[in-house]
Amino acid sequence: MHQHTRTDPYADRYAARAAGMVPSEIRALFAVANRPEVVSLAGGMPYVAALPLDIVGEMLGELTQRRGAQALQYASAQGDPELRARICEVMALEGVHGSPEDVIVTVGSQQALDLLTRIFVDPGDVVLAEAPSYVGALGTFAMYQADVVHVAMDDEGLIPQALRETLDRLGREGRRVKFLYTIPTFQNPGGVTLPASRRAEILEICASYGVLVIEDNPYGLLGFDGEPMRALRADDPDHVIYLGSFSKTFAPGFRVGWALAPHAVRAKLVLAAESAILSHSSFSQFAVREYLTTQPWKQQIKSFREMYRERRDAMLESLEALMPEGTTWTRPAGGFFVWVTLPEGLNAKAMAPRAIAERVAYVPGTGFYADGQGRRNMRLSFCFPEPDRIREGIRRLAAVVEREIDLRDTFGTAHAPERTGMDTPGPDTA
Amino acid sequence: MHQHTRTDPYADRYAARAAGMVPSEIRALFAVANRPEVVSLAGGMPYVAALPLDIVGEMLGELTQRRGAQALQYASAQGDPELRARICEVMALEGVHGSPEDVIVTVGSQQALDLLTRIFVDPGDVVLAEAPSYVGALGTFAMYQADVVHVAMDDEGLIPQALRETLDRLGREGRRVKFLYTIPTFQNPGGVTLPASRRAEILEICASYGVLVIEDNPYGLLGFDGEPMRALRADDPDHVIYLGSFSKTFAPGFRVGWALAPHAVRAKLVLAAESAILSHSSFSQFAVREYLTTQPWKQQIKSFREMYRERRDAMLESLEALMPEGTTWTRPAGGFFVWVTLPEGLNAKAMAPRAIAERVAYVPGTGFYADGQGRRNMRLSFCFPEPDRIREGIRRLAAVVEREIDLRDTFGTAHAPERTGMDTPGPDTA
Repeated sequence: MHQHTRTDPYADRYAARAAGMVPSEIRALFAVANRPEVVSLAGGMPYVAALPLDIVGEMLGELTQRRGAQALQYASAQGDPELRARICEVMALEGVHGSPEDVIVTVGSQQALDLLTRIFVDPGDVVLAEAPSYVGALGTFAMYQADVVHVAMDDEGLIPQALRETLDRLGREGRRVKFLYTIPTFQNPGGVTLPASRRAEILEICASYGVLVIEDNPYGLLGFDGEPMRALRADDPDHVIYLGSFSKTFAPGFRVGWALAPHAVRAKLVLAAESAILSHSSFSQFAVREYLTTQPWKQQIKSFREMYRERRDAMLESLEALMPEGTTWTRPAGGFFVWVTLPEGLNAKAMAPRAIAERVAYVPGTGFYADGQGRRNMRLSFCFPEPDRIREGIRRLAAVVEREIDLRDTFGTAHAPERTGMDTPGPDTA
Repeated sequence: MHQHTRTDPYADRYAARAAGMVPSEIRALFAVANRPEVVSLAGGMPYVAALPLDIVGEMLGELTQRRGAQALQYASAQGDPELRARICEVMALEGVHGSPEDVIVTVGSQQALDLLTRIFVDPGDVVLAEAPSYVGALGTFAMYQADVVHVAMDDEGLIPQALRETLDRLGREGRRVKFLYTIPTFQNPGGVTLPASRRAEILEICASYGVLVIEDNPYGLLGFDGEPMRALRADDPDHVIYLGSFSKTFAPGFRVGWALAPHAVRAKLVLAAESAILSHSSFSQFAVREYLTTQPWKQQIKSFREMYRERRDAMLESLEALMPEGTTWTRPAGGFFVWVTLPEGLNAKAMAPRAIAERVAYVPGTGFYADGQGRRNMRLSFCFPEPDRIREGIRRLAAVVEREIDLRDTFGTAHAPERTGMDTPGPDTA
């Protein structure tokens, strides 16, 4: 930790936007969570070991041998045209009919978020996000000095009436709303899904207030019951920018995501991408394209879904069986996450070091809000550990919560010291 | 081209920084340059077909089969520790002794430029760059609304006295200089190299004026004579941030570059990278690390050097034999580029469509300046076409220049209409 206490000799040279960029102390804690004796329910890493690695390896070797001169070369900033065509086929599963011309391939959907914020957001502009929302998006919005205003969710996702009221209030205050950022399906971290009726209403509200929607949909094909939901973008191509990713349906190691945007926006995204990275990896793009062309990828997604459903069931059953009264949680129908609310007076951030001491890790809820909410919340991931590990993790966690309740009852409400910086593990945390 | 004439329905929503982001008309021209009948001396694509693709393919296949669970997973935002250790070994060839702790792996060195500008530059801050300078860097500086001030070069690179005078003038004007961006070795586009004596002087000037140096060094190991130059960073670890890349020494298709920066700066770069892309591709990083660990990479660089030297020779000999009097050019001792100055009264940008009609392409000089200089200049690349194609390209180009001279002598100086937007091909242009 000595770099945090050393004086930074470059401190007076940074841009204004860099002032708040300080590593969070909680990261050190999460480094500990990577130890094998800790059951980590913290990270959002997909279980890629379930892929047929022998077959994928053979595919990549052949790809290099047959088309290495292209696959090892620079690519265009917009991305490989054939991959963009395959991406349109993937989106069609959710009712989205877009043209490959309007797709840009990005370094995960994270880069799409960065580029969109770059082209749309001036410092002080308002960005709307669910309460809670994806920590990586909040970090990007903060980087561009956006003012994030949260809109309340319930077990059915974003509440239309809350959105309307927020927009009215901001309108009265004369504030400029650049877009609504939403993860409508199997939300991160909430685990909740917006039903069809609300989708129509949200689209109607945004259209009538002239607010663009960024629909982030990394988990859409990972539902545990029935057919994929119809994406927001399917019903409003002019106001919705759709973000997708192969990180959860294939593998995050290639960092291939995308944005589907109206033509003029897509053109700006390409110029912004070229300035940011010149071009995405050809090899990564060829790898994903080859996978989608030659491998039974829908079958693989089906097998991922079954695996994650089993893990979700293990988590929900253990929570049900073991969590002390007063604790509540969401019941995700897909995706990776359960969102837990601890009993009144408990503080998930203050509890985190004690949980890790008991060999279980989670992400405290405060990281998923830009405004200090979420102290009683934690995000639990069921994507990476196998079912027995999940059960063991929840057992340990329930014991920690029990003790916190005892402490609260004995000594009153705990007040954790407040910390600055990002309250989340990096993406490297299992 | 119809997207350029259509009204952009999102025009009133963009951030201020996006206002200037319009695709250049000249890009359409460069799309034509990709036709096989055109000899393209425009792009800076390395000749990756010279790699042993069978062996690389085998290596990647095995890597996936043996360590796919890691190589297909998320990485840390700073980058793979073992790759960072290998990177330090590569830099040691140029006298740089850095710690893997101070290295961040980036999506090409382009991303390092983006992240550095992000953390250092507020709108209106001055960035110094050689005249001319790398177009991708100028694009990034423009994206962050920096004010680029060019410093004159001659055949030995940046002129120390010009740097001193520029810093004095800016000082008198009370303007804040954030850093000097320089490519000291085999410069892009100039093809010139800063000798050792000037290196010491430039470092001394920057230290005394308190100006950071960003040393961009993608071509340093691609010298045609003798040992690699000693990098600027080797002699001033506190004021120099070093950028490197495997795009030219291995393959650009993995998009693996890096920055070596003082500890506090590196820490901010990692946070900025996480916000921008979450993490770089694990697979790309494992691929480069495996290549450096198991393959004879120094031998491969030697063979690249010999190949590029032969192409440089073909270009210089043809220029010497064929170019009309009054045309001058640089004589690069390494790297990819020759910088040509046309006779007085000629305009390289106006000439470009006529050159393409004669089946030869280059990049007009204006793209390499932020201030409208470079009309008489063109950048010629000798990296991608084989020697005979280079000779044929120069033959065609010399004929085009002859005709321009005739036109000038008959009708007087040509005035090309000025265009907005970036004057360069994308990275996809051969």
